[in-house]
Amino acid sequence: MPDKPRKGTPLARRLWGGRFEGGPDRQAAAYGDSLAYDRRLYREDIAGSLAHAAMLAATGIISAREGRALGRGLKAVLAELDSGAFEFQPGDEDIHTAVERRLSEVAGPDVGGKLHTGRSRNDQVALDLRLFTRAQVVALAGAVGDLREALLLQARRHATDVMPAYTHLQRAQPSTIGHHLLAYVAMLERDFGRLRDAYARADVMPLGSGAATGSSLPLDRAHVARTLGFSAISQNSLDAVSDRDYVVEVEAACALVMVHLSRLGEEWVLWSTAEFGFVELPDDYSTGSSLMPQKKNPDVAELVRGRSGRVIGDLVAMLTALKGLPLAYNKDLQEDKEGFFDAVDTTLASLRIAAAMVQRSKFRLDRMAAAGSDPAMLATEVADHLVRLGVPFRSAHEVVGQAVREAARRGATLADLGLEDWQKLEPRFDAAGLEVLDARRALASRALPGSPGPVPVRRAIARATSALRRDRGWVASHEARGHPPTPGKAV
Amino acid sequence: MPDKPRKGTPLARRLWGGRFEGGPDRQAAAYGDSLAYDRRLYREDIAGSLAHAAMLAATGIISAREGRALGRGLKAVLAELDSGAFEFQPGDEDIHTAVERRLSEVAGPDVGGKLHTGRSRNDQVALDLRLFTRAQVVALAGAVGDLREALLLQARRHATDVMPAYTHLQRAQPSTIGHHLLAYVAMLERDFGRLRDAYARADVMPLGSGAATGSSLPLDRAHVARTLGFSAISQNSLDAVSDRDYVVEVEAACALVMVHLSRLGEEWVLWSTAEFGFVELPDDYSTGSSLMPQKKNPDVAELVRGRSGRVIGDLVAMLTALKGLPLAYNKDLQEDKEGFFDAVDTTLASLRIAAAMVQRSKFRLDRMAAAGSDPAMLATEVADHLVRLGVPFRSAHEVVGQAVREAARRGATLADLGLEDWQKLEPRFDAAGLEVLDARRALASRALPGSPGPVPVRRAIARATSALRRDRGWVASHEARGHPPTPGKAV
Amino acid sequence: MPDKPRKGTPLARRLWGGRFEGGPDRQAAAYGDSLAYDRRLYREDIAGSLAHAAMLAATGIISAREGRALGRGLKAVLAELDSGAFEFQPGDEDIHTAVERRLSEVAGPDVGGKLHTGRSRNDQVALDLRLFTRAQVVALAGAVGDLREALLLQARRHATDVMPAYTHLQRAQPSTIGHHLLAYVAMLERDFGRLRDAYARADVMPLGSGAATGSSLPLDRAHVARTLGFSAISQNSLDAVSDRDYVVEVEAACALVMVHLSRLGEEWVLWSTAEFGFVELPDDYSTGSSLMPQKKNPDVAELVRGRSGRVIGDLVAMLTALKGLPLAYNKDLQEDKEGFFDAVDTTLASLRIAAAMVQRSKFRLDRMAAAGSDPAMLATEVADHLVRLGVPFRSAHEVVGQAVREAARRGATLADLGLEDWQKLEPRFDAAGLEVLDARRALASRALPGSPGPVPVRRAIARATSALRRDRGWVASHEARGHPPTPGKAV
Amino acid sequence: MPDKPRKGTPLARRLWGGRFEGGPDRQAAAYGDSLAYDRRLYREDIAGSLAHAAMLAATGIISAREGRALGRGLKAVLAELDSGAFEFQPGDEDIHTAVERRLSEVAGPDVGGKLHTGRSRNDQVALDLRLFTRAQVVALAGAVGDLREALLLQARRHATDVMPAYTHLQRAQPSTIGHHLLAYVAMLERDFGRLRDAYARADVMPLGSGAATGSSLPLDRAHVARTLGFSAISQNSLDAVSDRDYVVEVEAACALVMVHLSRLGEEWVLWSTAEFGFVELPDDYSTGSSLMPQKKNPDVAELVRGRSGRVIGDLVAMLTALKGLPLAYNKDLQEDKEGFFDAVDTTLASLRIAAAMVQRSKFRLDRMAAAGSDPAMLATEVADHLVRLGVPFRSAHEVVGQAVREAARRGATLADLGLEDWQKLEPRFDAAGLEVLDARRALASRALPGSPGPVPVRRAIARATSALRRDRGWVASHEARGHPPTPGKAV
Repeated sequence: MPDKPRKGTPLARRLWGGRFEGGPDRQAAAYGDSLAYDRRLYREDIAGSLAHAAMLAATGIISAREGRALGRGLKAVLAELDSGAFEFQPGDEDIHTAVERRLSEVAGPDVGGKLHTGRSRNDQVALDLRLFTRAQVVALAGAVGDLREALLLQARRHATDVMPAYTHLQRAQPSTIGHHLLAYVAMLERDFGRLRDAYARADVMPLGSGAATGSSLPLDRAHVARTLGFSAISQNSLDAVSDRDYVVEVEAACALVMVHLSRLGEEWVLWSTAEFGFVELPDDYSTGSSLMPQKKNPDVAELVRGRSGRVIGDLVAMLTALKGLPLAYNKDLQEDKEGFFDAVDTTLASLRIAAAMVQRSKFRLDRMAAAGSDPAMLATEVADHLVRLGVPFRSAHEVVGQAVREAARRGATLADLGLEDWQKLEPRFDAAGLEVLDARRALASRALPGSPGPVPVRRAIARATSALRRDRGWVASHEARGHPPTPGKAV
Repeated sequence: MPDKPRKGTPLARRLWGGRFEGGPDRQAAAYGDSLAYDRRLYREDIAGSLAHAAMLAATGIISAREGRALGRGLKAVLAELDSGAFEFQPGDEDIHTAVERRLSEVAGPDVGGKLHTGRSRNDQVALDLRLFTRAQVVALAGAVGDLREALLLQARRHATDVMPAYTHLQRAQPSTIGHHLLAYVAMLERDFGRLRDAYARADVMPLGSGAATGSSLPLDRAHVARTLGFSAISQNSLDAVSDRDYVVEVEAACALVMVHLSRLGEEWVLWSTAEFGFVELPDDYSTGSSLMPQKKNPDVAELVRGRSGRVIGDLVAMLTALKGLPLAYNKDLQEDKEGFFDAVDTTLASLRIAAAMVQRSKFRLDRMAAAGSDPAMLATEVADHLVRLGVPFRSAHEVVGQAVREAARRGATLADLGLEDWQKLEPRFDAAGLEVLDARRALASRALPGSPGPVPVRRAIARATSALRRDRGWVASHEARGHPPTPGKAV
Repeated sequence: MPDKPRKGTPLARRLWGGRFEGGPDRQAAAYGDSLAYDRRLYREDIAGSLAHAAMLAATGIISAREGRALGRGLKAVLAELDSGAFEFQPGDEDIHTAVERRLSEVAGPDVGGKLHTGRSRNDQVALDLRLFTRAQVVALAGAVGDLREALLLQARRHATDVMPAYTHLQRAQPSTIGHHLLAYVAMLERDFGRLRDAYARADVMPLGSGAATGSSLPLDRAHVARTLGFSAISQNSLDAVSDRDYVVEVEAACALVMVHLSRLGEEWVLWSTAEFGFVELPDDYSTGSSLMPQKKNPDVAELVRGRSGRVIGDLVAMLTALKGLPLAYNKDLQEDKEGFFDAVDTTLASLRIAAAMVQRSKFRLDRMAAAGSDPAMLATEVADHLVRLGVPFRSAHEVVGQAVREAARRGATLADLGLEDWQKLEPRFDAAGLEVLDARRALASRALPGSPGPVPVRRAIARATSALRRDRGWVASHEARGHPPTPGKAV
Repeated sequence: MPDKPRKGTPLARRLWGGRFEGGPDRQAAAYGDSLAYDRRLYREDIAGSLAHAAMLAATGIISAREGRALGRGLKAVLAELDSGAFEFQPGDEDIHTAVERRLSEVAGPDVGGKLHTGRSRNDQVALDLRLFTRAQVVALAGAVGDLREALLLQARRHATDVMPAYTHLQRAQPSTIGHHLLAYVAMLERDFGRLRDAYARADVMPLGSGAATGSSLPLDRAHVARTLGFSAISQNSLDAVSDRDYVVEVEAACALVMVHLSRLGEEWVLWSTAEFGFVELPDDYSTGSSLMPQKKNPDVAELVRGRSGRVIGDLVAMLTALKGLPLAYNKDLQEDKEGFFDAVDTTLASLRIAAAMVQRSKFRLDRMAAAGSDPAMLATEVADHLVRLGVPFRSAHEVVGQAVREAARRGATLADLGLEDWQKLEPRFDAAGLEVLDARRALASRALPGSPGPVPVRRAIARATSALRRDRGWVASHEARGHPPTPGKAV
């Protein structure tokens, strides 16, 4: 596949050759051509051209016959690209050039030469990238939904199974697997919200902005927007051709998704260790060692964690490329694609593999329950009990802290202290205080909304399930618009 | 101001000292204490404590009398902090500790010791930071509005004054100052949208999440939310104490604001050069040189441009700090403040100074008009004229390209070519074609929505003015809620 | 401390006021003034001025008498700054202005007005920052040495104490604490190398570059370089005033130091968990919880980990600020200080606290040895034994993998399989094969350089100790030069 | 090319399959397999294996006959890969697996199965990446040299051609093209130094570190190092398999190279504008517009500028991926390749295209000289002249500042003021003062080392030429070692 000019092949004429003496230098072409990556946008590009051609005919800028010929020609080019029959030529510097070049071969130069009427590659590529963005955001929102579903499935299954809550990675208080997994659901609900908001700002049709100042031809911008299912048209031509906010915004949303996944990955790695022993990964989501025959490694979890770095890097790359650019279009904006593709591809794949990993993991309930019943974690229960007896919290905290030290001195746990021991520290301590040292009881007392008690966890699952259903509806209703329209629909 | 433990002063007891043999190491305290920067949150902290105390009393967890005593004590502490009379102590590791320590001195330990009932610093700091975030987002949205207003003021004044539109920093086509400035208004409208969306996700009340798993006490979380004007309470305690998405989201919105400002700054720097000569900066927004007596430097524009870097850096710092953290709270989260403060302070100040700079700048209309009338920029007009005569656009583009070359060969401009010259290149060329070579005429023909023609620019100004009015309304209505409630309101 | 112009105070005249009608705008001054942070460079600034004044006198550009008066005046200003008696004025936009303003007050305007002869703030600040950089790099290199020393101390103590080596955080093979700690020593040796190399590139004297093109006065640049102990003078004036490579390079070196510390921090956090239980942190390097009385949190390790983010962010900020700046000096370069100060301060403090934490930690040898003797980790030993019996490694790996599965099926470990079991899988297996299943024996067999066996570990400690001694020598020899010369030395 | 498992094809057995029940999940394999990008390292991988096999034979761990068979087999596999005849299989998860799989097919499983003796993929990939790094650093250093050469060529040609020096993008003082280009040479000399230093730290041989703790077999690590031309062997096995400092260090050096190129690109963009008009780009390094026939865009310069973003992003990605990883190898380290490849490829291509662009550019000497003779820029000359007459610099600066204002008031330049005008401002002003207002004279007076005067520029060119020669020597002497040894050399 000749992404770059081949040796010995003369470079074909470019779309803009008129004023130039010779063709571009081979090295410069190799450095500047974008076909190798923007060919990925061919469906978006042709969908946009079909809509543009239909508008040109509808407004009478070209004849109805020419409009039909353009439509037929573009669909023929699309078919070639879909089937893999399309042959790229050395002069095809980008996908726009390749499509128009082939269109002129298929439909004749007189027809093909009319497609670019009232259009510049500056607004054309902005359109392509917005179509792409819309579709990817919908796909990302869908994949966020898949992971929420997998987490909810396990949360339902283990709604009340005990495990420790950690702070500073120290065992803190009893919690449940269901509650723990719902924390990730909460993160992903926000991720969904950010993607949905980003979609709304990307859903703006830029064609008709020309190179920088629109066109003197009587284009019908709203017509194109309707054809392609856009909610609005852009309001300023200089901004429209140089705006890549939607790329940054989606990348920022992806970076935060990946940070969330890096936390999940970290926990899965920890939980797979011999030391924690909380989770058993399915064999087919683990790998072995080429040297150590006993190893079973949580590769997927590690990769999900590590790949947060590249998406953060993609975001930095785009922000930095945009920094300090004067209006309007500058070639630096060509840097909007590879990193963006990488960010959405990485995030999509990571969400999907994380969903599979979560769904297929088996929790080792005995180990989790044992860790979750560590008496040290019930210190707060005792303090709260003292509060109910009228001891100011700060004093209660102090008393229990001293009890912890006393127990440690004896090589024992809080559960091993007797009523007498406690009363030496705080005379108001009563027998009921000994009974709070029980993980299940502690959990049962966690009845506040958002807490790990059985009631709030079940309510939270119900709420999250219904939120997922609602968000799935958004995805479904936008999938039709978000994906590049098929040829039949566009013209 | 003793931010850090002074030599020779014994470190006071910490809030959590019970189980520890000795006080913290001096170096460790200096490394870990956050008072030096989180003292900035004292109003948020006390507002949150007032709401918490009121709720404790309302639910009967503490007595009404205790509630009133806490309220009085907290307001006394607030007054000391507001007036600068508050004396920080070496043991005050953070603002929460300082306030509670002083409260116990003012109201007595028996009362003060009850404030922390059912609360952890983990959910307390999350509340403080969300209160801070809300207020800052509203301030940022207001400052975005100020810059929009300044741009609109100048856009109105220069709605039809000619200047070039550039692509690749090459003169491309005639445009107007009004249209140019509206491009920045468009960017800032999106910035406002992102801030407003970020506000909604930050507007969630976390208190009642405890250290990680809520509380066994019958707290009324909705009561606290109502007191502080929050729209919702957090849904998962593990998430609530470890969520910093709102910090990242606001920082990402700020980074994009700063990228926009860096583009504006770059243009102002360019326009202030001897070579462009488009803008005259007011003396009091410029600086001179300590060596070269003639210099007048666009420092403000340069700084606005350069400070985009630090906000991008702040965003990276937060994302990286969050990467790979297991649930729930980890001390790494303490890194949520300094960079965040820096990002919002820098963005706020930059928006405000940019507004002043734009408003006070004088455009050198003669130079801009001269540059905007460069005949080379009218090449597209001729091509469009040929299209109207039936020449396919691609051929028309070719013809004009050859004309450009021919004119360059003669050391002339397009305007110097005669009818004959044109007809040699394309027989269909007619006399009317010569007349399109006029910048004002070209602009008049730019009638599409979003174009630089007089009609669409006036419409765009009207639209942007009304959008600004609407968004100003949002700011006004949220200012009351967004700022930390004054003591009188909170209890 | 009036960092920013106070209300009601007229702004004093700036160094460059001649051509300006009025003073600077208050908001613009607040946005652009750097005194709040660059005052930190006062010693560097005065050291540079002393050297400059001495050169002016030595070359006869000013008289010997004037030179002496400048020297006296500068030392008086320095004394005021050192003692805190110096009063900053509203017009002091930066430390250079403040010092020169005060100098003119102290020594009279006729003398003070000569100090800036042949100098610009552009080359002046470059000199100040290079002096600062040299001193900080030496301090960083020293702190890297402190941490190496702490690690070596513990490595010597625990050279042969068994613990597991992990890959993928799965127990992999037996290792020793000594060997483990030496891995960090190796990282830090590279860190030292990067700092030393960065020093060499920072050790270049820029004065005499003027604002951008040097000076027409017969300055003696080498004289200044000698006075301040620089190894070279800068070779191009445009580059010299706009070069901040040394800032980036030191920040990049710091970022890598912090990444190494983040790994150490992560391990200390893991090792402090109930699940691993490998390390006991000293009480005074841990903190408690304001809610949970039993908690003992590894705050220092967490902060060291989290603060890697801010240093990476500082690096990004500087790189982004520099991106796309035309020659020579631009005001954007003022952004070279705050992030740089933060990066070096954070890295220095983190290295020092990490050294203390490592030195004070107690390893729980029993838990580490138990984990390090997990028979599963000896699978490679059996495979290697089979290799010695002539079995191709790939087949040996396969055989042991099947043995692992068989043992797991029985709920047993590799150590529980008998000779017969093994021979069923591979007939060449012999009785000696059963004996390799011993962690100490496995370790004894690790004799290659760089391995955890007792001999190579002791050799590695000796080598690292001698490398540390050598690098300590570099630090000592550069400390004198690196720190801003005291007044007495400079003139 | 089957980078990812194809539907319907059973996944082949992995190198580590022994203990696993089934093959890997298809999605997990697609997510985790690295063949698609690490196949690029096949020459490094085989060079390393040849050296390993030779050592195994030399030490008697395998027989001489087996050693020869491995050598023959590996060379056959290399030939297949070189010629494109090699067929990757669905089970080839990485290049190591692919090569070993094919080796066993070519040389028989009994021989092929011995290659991995005493080796893990952990140390194998570390070796491959270090071999790759060495070669790339040498290539980068060579390309840095090419750009230095192109700049020096133009600097020699235009050593004394006048142009303005800018600060704040305001015309500051007269300078020369030669001097300006030498500023970039100075940056690139530092870039070379950083690459050379990075090479030294990458030039360390990690094989023999095994998965994490070396090997119990009597490997000869120094033998492998000698064969592959390494200067040292790694000193700690845990560090050796998890160290990616050399990746970060080279990426950081690349990021700084790209920042330098972004500055060059910015200037070329500015200089190509109608407003500056300093440079004429060759047609074949420019592109046109698909809409505007007259456009000639400096695409290459823009792309060089914009691509700084991606390399900074690659650096951030790697630093973030490394953050917080416990020892030793973690799968996250697989993220060391794609970003690294991108960083070195982008930097190499950018250096080369920049060299071509610089070499082929034509400076418009008339425009540059005109701008460089702007009398305003000579203000410092007058001030310096007054200093020579005994006026303190600060007063002289003031005087000239007032003259600038006076000239501006009259709509004139400094050159239009008469002796009388000057003497009104400063009585000591003499007739000679009027003569300093000449750009060539001002330049002639710039005689300090590093200044734009004719003498120092010629000296600087000579110095830079000789430094280039010396650095070219380093490149040449390392090219042999740096590139993966050809088969013939390795065994």
